[in-house]
Formats: sequence, structure tokens, C-alpha cells
Amino acid sequence: MRESVSVSIVGASGYSGAELLKIFQRHRFVRIEKLFANSSAGKSVADLYPHFRGQYEQRYESYSIDAACASDAVFLALPSGEAMMLAPDLLKRGKKVIDLGGDFRLKDVAQYEKFYKHEHHATAFLEGAVYGLTEWNREQIKTATLLSNPGCYPTSAELALIPLLKESIVQPNNLVITAMSGVSGAGRSAAQDLSFVEVNESAKAYKVGVHQHLPEIKQALEAFSGKAASLSFVPHLVPLTRGILTTIHASLNNDVRETDVLAAFDKHYKNEPFIRYSNEVMPEIKGVVHTNFTDIGFRIYEETHQLIVISAIDNLMKGAAGQAVQNFNLMFGIDETEGLR
Amino acid sequence: MRESVSVSIVGASGYSGAELLKIFQRHRFVRIEKLFANSSAGKSVADLYPHFRGQYEQRYESYSIDAACASDAVFLALPSGEAMMLAPDLLKRGKKVIDLGGDFRLKDVAQYEKFYKHEHHATAFLEGAVYGLTEWNREQIKTATLLSNPGCYPTSAELALIPLLKESIVQPNNLVITAMSGVSGAGRSAAQDLSFVEVNESAKAYKVGVHQHLPEIKQALEAFSGKAASLSFVPHLVPLTRGILTTIHASLNNDVRETDVLAAFDKHYKNEPFIRYSNEVMPEIKGVVHTNFTDIGFRIYEETHQLIVISAIDNLMKGAAGQAVQNFNLMFGIDETEGLR
Amino acid sequence: MRESVSVSIVGASGYSGAELLKIFQRHRFVRIEKLFANSSAGKSVADLYPHFRGQYEQRYESYSIDAACASDAVFLALPSGEAMMLAPDLLKRGKKVIDLGGDFRLKDVAQYEKFYKHEHHATAFLEGAVYGLTEWNREQIKTATLLSNPGCYPTSAELALIPLLKESIVQPNNLVITAMSGVSGAGRSAAQDLSFVEVNESAKAYKVGVHQHLPEIKQALEAFSGKAASLSFVPHLVPLTRGILTTIHASLNNDVRETDVLAAFDKHYKNEPFIRYSNEVMPEIKGVVHTNFTDIGFRIYEETHQLIVISAIDNLMKGAAGQAVQNFNLMFGIDETEGLR
Amino acid sequence: MRESVSVSIVGASGYSGAELLKIFQRHRFVRIEKLFANSSAGKSVADLYPHFRGQYEQRYESYSIDAACASDAVFLALPSGEAMMLAPDLLKRGKKVIDLGGDFRLKDVAQYEKFYKHEHHATAFLEGAVYGLTEWNREQIKTATLLSNPGCYPTSAELALIPLLKESIVQPNNLVITAMSGVSGAGRSAAQDLSFVEVNESAKAYKVGVHQHLPEIKQALEAFSGKAASLSFVPHLVPLTRGILTTIHASLNNDVRETDVLAAFDKHYKNEPFIRYSNEVMPEIKGVVHTNFTDIGFRIYEETHQLIVISAIDNLMKGAAGQAVQNFNLMFGIDETEGLR
Repeated sequence: MRESVSVSIVGASGYSGAELLKIFQRHRFVRIEKLFANSSAGKSVADLYPHFRGQYEQRYESYSIDAACASDAVFLALPSGEAMMLAPDLLKRGKKVIDLGGDFRLKDVAQYEKFYKHEHHATAFLEGAVYGLTEWNREQIKTATLLSNPGCYPTSAELALIPLLKESIVQPNNLVITAMSGVSGAGRSAAQDLSFVEVNESAKAYKVGVHQHLPEIKQALEAFSGKAASLSFVPHLVPLTRGILTTIHASLNNDVRETDVLAAFDKHYKNEPFIRYSNEVMPEIKGVVHTNFTDIGFRIYEETHQLIVISAIDNLMKGAAGQAVQNFNLMFGIDETEGLR
Repeated sequence: MRESVSVSIVGASGYSGAELLKIFQRHRFVRIEKLFANSSAGKSVADLYPHFRGQYEQRYESYSIDAACASDAVFLALPSGEAMMLAPDLLKRGKKVIDLGGDFRLKDVAQYEKFYKHEHHATAFLEGAVYGLTEWNREQIKTATLLSNPGCYPTSAELALIPLLKESIVQPNNLVITAMSGVSGAGRSAAQDLSFVEVNESAKAYKVGVHQHLPEIKQALEAFSGKAASLSFVPHLVPLTRGILTTIHASLNNDVRETDVLAAFDKHYKNEPFIRYSNEVMPEIKGVVHTNFTDIGFRIYEETHQLIVISAIDNLMKGAAGQAVQNFNLMFGIDETEGLR
Repeated sequence: MRESVSVSIVGASGYSGAELLKIFQRHRFVRIEKLFANSSAGKSVADLYPHFRGQYEQRYESYSIDAACASDAVFLALPSGEAMMLAPDLLKRGKKVIDLGGDFRLKDVAQYEKFYKHEHHATAFLEGAVYGLTEWNREQIKTATLLSNPGCYPTSAELALIPLLKESIVQPNNLVITAMSGVSGAGRSAAQDLSFVEVNESAKAYKVGVHQHLPEIKQALEAFSGKAASLSFVPHLVPLTRGILTTIHASLNNDVRETDVLAAFDKHYKNEPFIRYSNEVMPEIKGVVHTNFTDIGFRIYEETHQLIVISAIDNLMKGAAGQAVQNFNLMFGIDETEGLR
Repeated sequence: MRESVSVSIVGASGYSGAELLKIFQRHRFVRIEKLFANSSAGKSVADLYPHFRGQYEQRYESYSIDAACASDAVFLALPSGEAMMLAPDLLKRGKKVIDLGGDFRLKDVAQYEKFYKHEHHATAFLEGAVYGLTEWNREQIKTATLLSNPGCYPTSAELALIPLLKESIVQPNNLVITAMSGVSGAGRSAAQDLSFVEVNESAKAYKVGVHQHLPEIKQALEAFSGKAASLSFVPHLVPLTRGILTTIHASLNNDVRETDVLAAFDKHYKNEPFIRYSNEVMPEIKGVVHTNFTDIGFRIYEETHQLIVISAIDNLMKGAAGQAVQNFNLMFGIDETEGLR
């Protein structure tokens, strides 16, 4: 039997960090070394997440690079702007870094600074960072040292659209992407506008036209399909804990029929362990919650000659920790599905 | 002081019926005559809706036309296909009918039968039925005898779009309308797929491309803007009780600026008591729940030269009972806002 | 027609403050003077509560006693410890004060300091403060200058129990009171443990044996029934926005029958406008939400010779702002139900 | 490696059936033979539960005893009254039966017929049925052929109380048990009162004094503690999908201190894999959801000389399918925790 990889998590007390821990409970080849969480240092995992009672003895610690370097791989699950301060030193000391945040996703510094609204301090590492959209970048991921894990909304939109663009099913311009997300996507923080009373029994669009996932989606669609794309992206907050449902309108190319759409998905996803697609069943969030699946459904709408594509993921799994572990597995030569079934 | 109008409700035990009752509690010029609900005949209002305890002595009764004709106005809050069986006789006996269902909304019988999936048995009444989109059809409503109250999704989409089409702010083709609705929109019935466990912590699109509100929206956009329209409409079910949030993408006409959009809304809605619009505040469902307001917000998105318009209503108020009372008030010469503040 | 009373609210940006505003919208004899909220000074009401858009022009201001004294009555809706710093000066300047918080509820300073965990700085005012359990203290309330409005849990427990104790239906010792509350009861603050993700899909008991409402309930039961009482009180947090459901077990006195229980409620509540009781219908939260009603139901359980009494209120209405306005009406000679129907 | 046990599930389309399937996905020694569900015969598992897409090929079938007898063990997950019609024949043909329903829990036929409100047709099997409260009946369970799995509320109440009764920590009379449950406890059916709109934003007590779990709790407390018990039990429905939280008041025996309570739990549960208890942490539903754990917390309340004990379980796991598999494992000589970690 193969040996374990030792891993540490920085920002381990957030929802993505806790989801990584849950996955590692059933991962046969991971040994957790350190859980860093400055704001919760000294507390136990079960203090914050009671379902872990009796499962982990470890306590959160304040971050130090020396402690982090005791492990083979370091997962960063940090607010934007923080990973860029830690990743360079870890890489210099030979560690493999999996960043769940947005610091290394955009290749274009100007776009980063426009959408994330602060300066980038590790621009030299942007080019080498490997974008971890597993199904489309597997070979590069296997040899990555700095893995930049995709955002939650981007994962759901990109997996639905790339095959359709690449196979010329739909036109790459004027894509309309609307999506709704559960509240865990906003992270574990004491924000007044994320309180139960504010979120419950309501719904709203937010960051219309200025969300940081917008340039990420555009970059990935173009990189993996080879075509210039233009798109609108409107995210909505809805009162549920987990899950993203993304509804996409795209103009069909001429003479495309349903079988062509299916063929495009077959060509790219037929053997993918974590993608389920159908021309009959429309995805629902409850079908993917607590799983690493992406569910995709579609319908041709002749009136406007558009394809309507809908995809669903669990924002903490395929949209964060699940895909991060999928990528980690590839980086360390472990079966891609380990810990994720 | 003016005299009361006596009203009866057919289908009074459903959510729209109960909402009518709630409005009538604060309406100074309505006297409730009969509450018809065949499935709940003999039960009291408070048996079904405990918040009415001690408020209404009346019990639900089985429908009879003679009993119904004791009142001046009859509200029909029935499943599709039932109102068409009752309205003709009521009209013949001189009653004013306000139909909250879909039976008299579509002028084109073929469209009705295609989308509602059953035959229409009162086609002679379609032409005379007045579509009750209050803000756009006030004069006709005042003299209507058969008032066809708009659907919930259509109300939210039409009120947002008509001024923009009419003032040539956006192009009328390829409109993309996605919307999410609370569960009360599906009515009060014992459906397994509307049970708490099925709906909670999930979300899904449904009836993609085949929802009966699709032709209604198209018909109203064209009727009130005078332009041929094409559109896609994708409704979603989300886990909340009340409210609709509609997100619309439309292609901007050339040289349109934000002030032009505002001017279009000003022109048509400046003095409307139940429409609030803004270029700064985006609507949220919690802003309109339990009110008769329609909230509209918008943003110009230059990348795709589109206007993103978002509107919110309470599906049981402006999307059903509230707008029905607004129309009823007009039909009986009562101040339009009576009972609705 | 009678003249308006001018009122100001201190702590107007919280949920109780917003509920007062909503009540005042339909109150014919109130003129709102000032809305004080230091943390939200400069913001408009609609900035925080979008349903108020277009309803109130006023903005929140920083508190000053001079500004507050421009009104006849001042409502204090503040965290514990703050009202005691403001009320004395307002009273000295002749204002009537309605305090929705806990600072003046307990007559015994030692109990206050034990359960609220800080010193009391206005002990001279405790004796004169009138406890605003409307149905049991009406005459005193009419002449009160410092009105101490009951807590939410206490209101639901006391209204259910006092008639039963006073009429010797149940024994006053070893009362077991368990209750569950919606999240708005915890106030409008950015607490991590009140975030949607933490509260949703969970439930827990909290402050077992140390909740500050425990001594308040005991004091009121004893004051209004004239009997020494002992009780346990266990509150629970459940995932809903509004409402309290309280379940009480009390030992029956000998030979008590159901008709005796009903007679006790009849004797005290028969003509109460805001209390509904029944030996047939058990209360549910949805029956009282957005109303000022207290619903009470009961069942004799012979196996343990106990009476099980259940009561439901809306924590923001009868449990806070609604009862406060009921008391305010009495203090100013206005019909008690004004604004509350 | 040991051989698999082949199992079938009757009533496989309900929530407990689906939970069994989920557990069996990670159980190394189970082979699913047949899924019986008359009302869903012909449908696939994924048709009803989309998260199973691509996981199970099997379809639901109509029940036949011959088909059922192809497996070694048969799980019955049926409404009350149905298991008693099937179990006798299965037992006669040598099958081991695990009944998740209530048909074989009560030893006293009169109590069954009083609380379940219909006749019992297999009374000869009541004595031989083994009550599957795993932690208290392990030896009998190992040799059981008809295993009667405890109810959800009973599991949470009994596990909390039995050690306290057995070790004379609390008095066995006048126990007050209040509990709240998520909606999945009511099963998967199209009941109007379980619809999202009815349950959401409300809470209520139900079946006060007449719930069928009442005699079950009494019987188990007495059987396992050896003491006559009397108790009240009030269940509540709250708006969440899964989980039970039970709050118990019991009179302390003299001179009992906190260390004695802890010692009682230590004595019986120190090495139990699925029970976590504490004098510091109070259980919350989110700590046990999707696990087989029972969490127990307690506090001595001196004012009334009572012990307040709170326990939490997932009603579908330890309260149904999880405990059923725990018992199944014992019956077939498999490690008790298999499939449940």
C-alpha cells in the first residue's frame, strides 16, 4: 500500500477548511499535519464544528512557515490577498501549494487589481500557477507546484460551457450566465448581511457586473475552447446553506440539434467520474449536495435559437475543497477519486 | 362615506384566496359575502389558516351560482380550466368577475391549449376579457366586467420591460428572462415535490421553455409596447415561502445611457403608487414581501452592451391578490390603493 | 379627532425598532419625531430595511437628550445596560419612557447583576418602573412614566401561567418551561453564531439555567398570582425568523377538570383583544406571526397528573414592539388596540 | 476477506430506505438484492433521489415474498400496520428481518392498538422480537431473527435516560420529555401539512399525550433500568429536514453531584463508538446530522433540584437507518461500526 502524504491547511477554520477535513477523514493516503487558523488558534476543531467531536484531536495554531514546511503539501483556504503573501515562500522551500482562493487564478494583473480591488504582490508566480479545472487541465495539474483551484461559480459555468464552445455548438459571444448560490459560499464570518434573519425568506442579485469570478470565467472559456468569449454573469444569494445552480443562455450555431449537444458532452465527459449530463433530467441542487459531482442538463429553445444549459455543484465540494482534493490527488499520483466517493 | 361592495371568492381556501381575505380585513369598502371552496366546505377559515382565528366567522361552502350571485363581484382563484366553466354564467347574470387564474389571459386559443394542455371552453369571452396589468391598462380596467389578472412571473417581467421597450431603450428580440419564485406560487396542494423535505436546501429550474407564463409575457410586451418581441423565460423554484425575483438581460439600443433608462421609468412610473425603481438599489425579495410593491433596479453592462434589469414582487400580493384588489378598486370606483397600504 | 403623540425611538435600527416603525405606519395618533441609532447615524431607514423604501424620509441620527426631548414619548430599544444610562435624564425632563429592554424589569438588583452580568446604575428607578404585562397590569400602566416592557419569552410563559396559578389550577412549584425562539429574538448584530449557515438546519438549547428571563418569569408569576413559584426554563434557538413557542408542564391540583382550566382562562381573558385560548386547538407559530396575539392551548395529561400548556407569540410583536405600543396606547389614553389590528 | 450479506429493502423509496442505500454505498459487506416499493415500482432510485444518479442501476419493484427470499436479510421500512403482514412469512422462510417501523416494538398488544389505532395481526411474534436499542441490548441483538428497530424520539430519550435511572441519579417518575424533530421524520408522502409553505417559518407541538412513541419510551426505560417509570412526552415539528433535539427534566435523587452524573455515563458509555456525552458542551442538531452519533449534555439545576439532560440524533441515522445497520452488523457478525463511520 502506498505511503501517506502529509498535508497542512492554512485558514483551516473556514468552511472550505472544514470541508477538506471531512474529505480527509475518508482519504486513505493523507496524514493531517497542521491546521493553521490565526483567529481560532488554540481552539479545537470540534469547538467550531461540533460534528467533528471525537474525530480530531488537533487544535488550530497560528501560522508559521516552519511549521507549515513539516508537511508535503499545503492547502491555502484564505481570503483574497493573503495567499499571495504565503505561497512564494512555501514554493521556495519545495512545498506543493494548493490555493483555494483567487490570488493566482487570473493571468492578467490588471484584471486582478480591478476586480479584487487591491494590489497583487506575487505577480511573478502568476504565469507558473496551474489552473485546477481538473477535467480540462489534467496533464498540467499532474506536475503543478502551485495549483490555483477554480472559483465556485466559475467551475459550474466553465464545465457546462467549454465543450459547447470547443465543439462549436454555441456562439462564444453574448453568453448570459445567471447563477444562485447558498450562503456558505460567502465564507464563515460575522457579517451582518449574512445573518439568518437577513438571508432567510429573501433572495437578491449582488455584485452585478463587478463580481471577481467574471474575468475568471472569461479567461477559462477562452483558454480551453480557443475562442474569444464575451459574457454577462449575475450571481444571486438564496437561502440555503450549500449549492450553486447556474443557468446559461447561449446562441446556437446553425443546424445544431440535440444529438449534437449530447455528442459534445460525450466526447469530453463520457468517462469523467464526476460529471453527469443529460438531455432529459434537469439538475437540482439536492442532487449534488455533499458530493463532488457536476450535474449538467440542457434544452434547445427554438424560439430564440438558444441553448439553455443548467449546471449544479456543491460549492464547498466541486466548487472548492472537493476539486482541490481531486487536483491534489493528481499532483501526488493518487487515484483522482480517492476520498471523493 | 361610500357604500361597501359585496364580494365572494371562489377557491377561497388556497393561498391567493387567503391573501384576498387578509387584504379585505383592512379594506374599508368591502363586505365579504361567501367563501367557496368545495374541498374545504364546512371548515372555517381558521381551521386552515390559524392566524385568522377570531377574525372571520364564515365557513367555506360548496359553490353554487345562486349563492355567488348574492354579491356584486366574484373573485375566482381556481386551478387552470375551472374559471372558464364558471365565469360565463356569472357574467350573464351581471356580476363583475376578477379571475386570478390563467384562463382568460391569452387571446390566442391555440397558445392557451398548447401551454395549458387542455381545451378552452369559453373562447367567446377571451376577446372581452381585460388584462389587469394595472399600470398599463387602467382605462380599460375601469370598465371591465371580466378582469383577467396577470400571472405572478409575468407581472414582474412585464412591469420591468414595457417602459424599456416602449421608449426604445432595449431591443425587443432575444430577451433573456430568468426568475426565481417562492413555493407559495405553486399553490396549496398536497404535492410530494412541494413537501418541505423536497424543497428545503435545494433549487431547480422547471418547465424550461414550456411554462404557461411564457406566451403571456410575450403577448403583454407586444400589446403594451407595440413591438414584436422574442424571449426566453426560465423559472426556478427556491426554498422560500413568498416572493419572485426576476433577472432580465436585454440588448441596449445604441447610445443609450443610464439617464435614458431612468427617464423611461420616470416617464411611466413617476407617480405610480406601487412601483419603486432605482439605478442605485438592487431589489431584494425581503423588500417587497407582504407589500403590493414592484421594485425595479438596473445596471448597464458595457461588455456585452446589455441592460440588466431586476425586479421583485410578492407573488401573492402584486403577483396575485394585491393586484387583483388594485384592479377591483378601479372597477368599482374606489381609490386604487385602498386596502393595499 | 384626537391629536397625535410625538414619539422618538432610541436604538431605532434594530429589529424591535423597525417593528415599531411598521406599527406606527398604521397608527393614527403617532407622529415620529426622531430615530436614534448611533451605529447607523446618517443612513436612511430604507438603507437597512428595504421594505420601507418610499415610506419614511427620516434618517437615523446620533442620540442627544435634547433632540429626544422634542417628543412626548421615548421608546428605548437598546442592549442591556444602555437604557439605564438614558432613562433617568429623560424622566427628569418629563418624558414618558417605554423601555423594551431588560434594565428595569427586575426589582431585585442582585438578581439583575447576577443574570445580566453587569452593575446596575439606576437602581433608584427600579421601584417606580411599571412592568408592562398589559393584561395583568393595566391600571398601573395607565399612569406609568417609566414603562418596562416584558421580555419575549416571559410574555409567552406568564400569560399562559398566571391565570392557572391565580385560580389554583396548577401547583406553583417545579414548573417546567421549555421554549423555542426564532433568530430575530437575538437582535440585529453581526454575530458569527447567528449567521445563516450556523443556524440553518440546526437547533440547540442555550443559556440553560442562566438565561436572564428566568428571574423575570419567576418575579411576574409571583407578583400577579400572589404565590411563591419555582421553575425551570430552557430556551432553544430554531431556524426561523420570528416567533416563540413555549411548552409548559405544571402539576395539576386535585380534582381539576378541563372545564376548570377553561373557566380560569375565561375569567381573565374572555374579553382580551389579543389573547386567544382553546382546549381544542394547539397554537402554532404561523398563527401569530406578524400579529399581536398570544395563542394558548392546553391538555390534561392524566398519567402524570400534569397540565401541558402551550403558548405562541410573535417575539417582535406581543414579545416586544406590539406590547410596547399596547402599553403606550394605555399611557396616552388611546384605544389599546390602535395600530395593532 | 469476509463474504457479503445479500439484503433487500421493502419500502425502499421512503426516506429511511434511501438512507439505508446511502449507508450501503460505503458498507463493504453488503450486496443489495432487491428494492421493493409498490408505489414507485418501475422507477429508478435516481428518479426519486437525484444524488444517486449513476450510483445504482436498480429499479424499485413490487413486493413478492419469493423475490424477497433471494436475500439473507430483509429490511422493512413501512408505514405502521404493513410490516406485521410481511414479517411472519419471511421469518418462516428463514430470513432475518430488521423492521424499522413500530409494529413489533410494544410488547403489550393493548398499548399497540391504543396508540397505533388499528388491530395487531401478528401478536405471536411480539415476544420474540428483539428491541434494537443497540447499546443496551447487544447480546440479544446478536441472535435476533426479528429485530425491531427503535423509534427516532425513543432512541434519543432512552439513551439519555437509561443510565441515569439505572444508576439512581434521577427519580423515575414525572419525567418531562419535550423534543423537536425535522420534517423527514414524518416520512416521504404528499401530505398538505408537510408542504414547504405550511412548515416553513412555523413550529408546533403535535400529538400531545397521544404519540405512539410515548409507550415505547416507557417500556424501554423500565425494561433496561428495572424501574417503573412515568413520563410526559411532547414532540414538536420544526422547519428543518433532519435531526431530533430532546430536552428532558428529571428530579435528582438526593446528594447527586455533577461527577455522579458523569460517572453514570462513563460506566455505560465510555467505550461506545456512537455516543458522545459531556458536562460542558450542549448538543446541537448540526453536530449529529448525517452521522450515527448520539450527543448528550446535561446540567444540574439546583433551584428545582432537577437534572436537565439534552440529547441530539439524526432521526434518519441513529433514529432509523443508522441504528438499523448497527443492529444488522451485530446480527451478521460484522464489526458494529461498518458503514457508519
